[in-house]
Amino acid sequence: MSETPLGGSAIRWRGGEGGVLELLDQTRLPGEARVLSLSGLEEVRDAISRLAVRGAPAIGVAAAFGLWLGIRAAPEDQAGFDAVLAEAKARLVSARPTAANLAWALGRIEAAARGADAAPARKRRAFEAAKALLDEDVRTCARLAEHGAGLIRDGESVLTYCNTGALAAAGAGTALAVVLEAHRRGRRVSVFACETRPLLQGSRLTMWELMRAEVDATLITDNAAADVMRRKLVHRVLVGADRIARNGDTANKIGTYGVALLAKAHGIPFHVVAPLSTFDPTIGSGDRIPIEERAASEVTQIEGRPIAPAGARAFAPAFDVTPAALITGIVTEAGVISPVDEAGVTRVLSNPRASI
Amino acid sequence: MSETPLGGSAIRWRGGEGGVLELLDQTRLPGEARVLSLSGLEEVRDAISRLAVRGAPAIGVAAAFGLWLGIRAAPEDQAGFDAVLAEAKARLVSARPTAANLAWALGRIEAAARGADAAPARKRRAFEAAKALLDEDVRTCARLAEHGAGLIRDGESVLTYCNTGALAAAGAGTALAVVLEAHRRGRRVSVFACETRPLLQGSRLTMWELMRAEVDATLITDNAAADVMRRKLVHRVLVGADRIARNGDTANKIGTYGVALLAKAHGIPFHVVAPLSTFDPTIGSGDRIPIEERAASEVTQIEGRPIAPAGARAFAPAFDVTPAALITGIVTEAGVISPVDEAGVTRVLSNPRASI
Repeated sequence: MSETPLGGSAIRWRGGEGGVLELLDQTRLPGEARVLSLSGLEEVRDAISRLAVRGAPAIGVAAAFGLWLGIRAAPEDQAGFDAVLAEAKARLVSARPTAANLAWALGRIEAAARGADAAPARKRRAFEAAKALLDEDVRTCARLAEHGAGLIRDGESVLTYCNTGALAAAGAGTALAVVLEAHRRGRRVSVFACETRPLLQGSRLTMWELMRAEVDATLITDNAAADVMRRKLVHRVLVGADRIARNGDTANKIGTYGVALLAKAHGIPFHVVAPLSTFDPTIGSGDRIPIEERAASEVTQIEGRPIAPAGARAFAPAFDVTPAALITGIVTEAGVISPVDEAGVTRVLSNPRASI
Repeated sequence: MSETPLGGSAIRWRGGEGGVLELLDQTRLPGEARVLSLSGLEEVRDAISRLAVRGAPAIGVAAAFGLWLGIRAAPEDQAGFDAVLAEAKARLVSARPTAANLAWALGRIEAAARGADAAPARKRRAFEAAKALLDEDVRTCARLAEHGAGLIRDGESVLTYCNTGALAAAGAGTALAVVLEAHRRGRRVSVFACETRPLLQGSRLTMWELMRAEVDATLITDNAAADVMRRKLVHRVLVGADRIARNGDTANKIGTYGVALLAKAHGIPFHVVAPLSTFDPTIGSGDRIPIEERAASEVTQIEGRPIAPAGARAFAPAFDVTPAALITGIVTEAGVISPVDEAGVTRVLSNPRASI
């Protein structure tokens, strides 16, 4: 990502408290590397809603600065400030319902603010917390990549889904960061990238990242995943996550559950790579994870052009849930949870500093 | 299909021996119902290669008339005629390697021609055989629909793949004809149509047919099939076939094998609907079925517009093979083969007139 307009990142804060949030507009890639400069909460909310910024970690970082943008001009009396903070948080948390990192990041900023007594100090703390959250994401991604790269053997072919690289985070990403780290270490690793309909994050974004890093990458339609597995062309599946329940059930981009079933049927290890901020300990199992439904037009059109008859009805869930039983392991910054069950998840969440 | 330019059909012969083959250009649907009038073998071969006509039964009918177009101006001396016939057949059979109906139809026309002694009579027989093959396809589709409709219970939701309706045959089609017949009989039947990347036959063609017939139809991306199964929204899977080996292993549009694995994992019956002309008794199992690879641009572009970075490599198998063990039954014009194994297939092929 070193030649991107944002100097190696898909999201950054530019300036001090009065600055702007800069994002690489992911709806335009790979055709155009356009930078969005956002200076208001609603602009950030809109960017999250329409997937100009996407990927659970990046959504968290964007939301943190979105909250800052929503409160930086708030009145400095306590009640007035707190009301603006609460409203800004509610507004942002509703931008997309599934990614755990959204509520997690907003909760972090709010808690940091409330740690101070007076409104001016609360503001300052919120800004510092947003910056810290971005820096922490960079470090977390590096640790995910490190733990995950340990899994990849020389010569492996990895199947990836959606986009989970540097475009999905402030840092290097999650599942794709693992592949890139293995490549950086000199391991021969090749990738089958599933295109990931409807919004084609695999073909548009993952292929872009892999080709820039000169990793051996082959694009396939999502429906070819079973066939490449049957042909024994895939040794491992690595995916990201949007929300992980306490028992390890994992919500991720629509189609992930199918890939997990196919991997199981072919005896191929299937790993989720996600920061601890993607875990939602308040939810016991995947059936309680809220699943966002997107507009039918995302399925019936591609880039605004119809691919189905006018008036065609479509069902467009943005995510599905992969049961823990289909997941070989979850790579976190604290190490790899395996087997994936409530005991393993709880152990890591209760003591994230201890390596597994 | 009653309002199509071809009067209810996707393919027809217009005129006598000097006539033309008319096709609804399926690369243009649903945006435009354009008719191609073909008067030469190479035009027909091109239409088959670029999927202007597709679907195993329709490919067979097109090839039969393509052969006629290739031989109707042949010299009327025996040796000269036979040489043209052989060359025309070889040229057409190479248009697409997987669909069994292509070689089957060409073999039928050739055998009919060789049934006569002299070249003029051979020509006449070839033309009659092509017309008979088209008429037979109409009758065969009707019997497939009848046998298959017996499977569909009132209130069922059926998941379909690719396009297997009237656009895939001279008659009513295969798997989709079953759904439409059940609907015609007044059974409440609804459909989830998988869009079928890369060429989107599900969204472009199947949705078009279902909406015209006023069947309750919902379009999904292929990668949502697992999720709608997990939500218990699907009671049955019906697909077509391009070639079926003697043991029942079935080549069909890329992605079918994955859907079959998902159906198995969710305990959902999975039926193939195909005429006996799609069976290839010379091939013992699916691993010997030749699988066509299409151009990478079919994956990296949609309707000529790039959806991946320039230079992206893609793997584009047009078909995959579903093992017989994943298939609940194969609906043929002679009845339903179930269980699907070499004994069942051989029994039907050796005595197709006996009902099962």
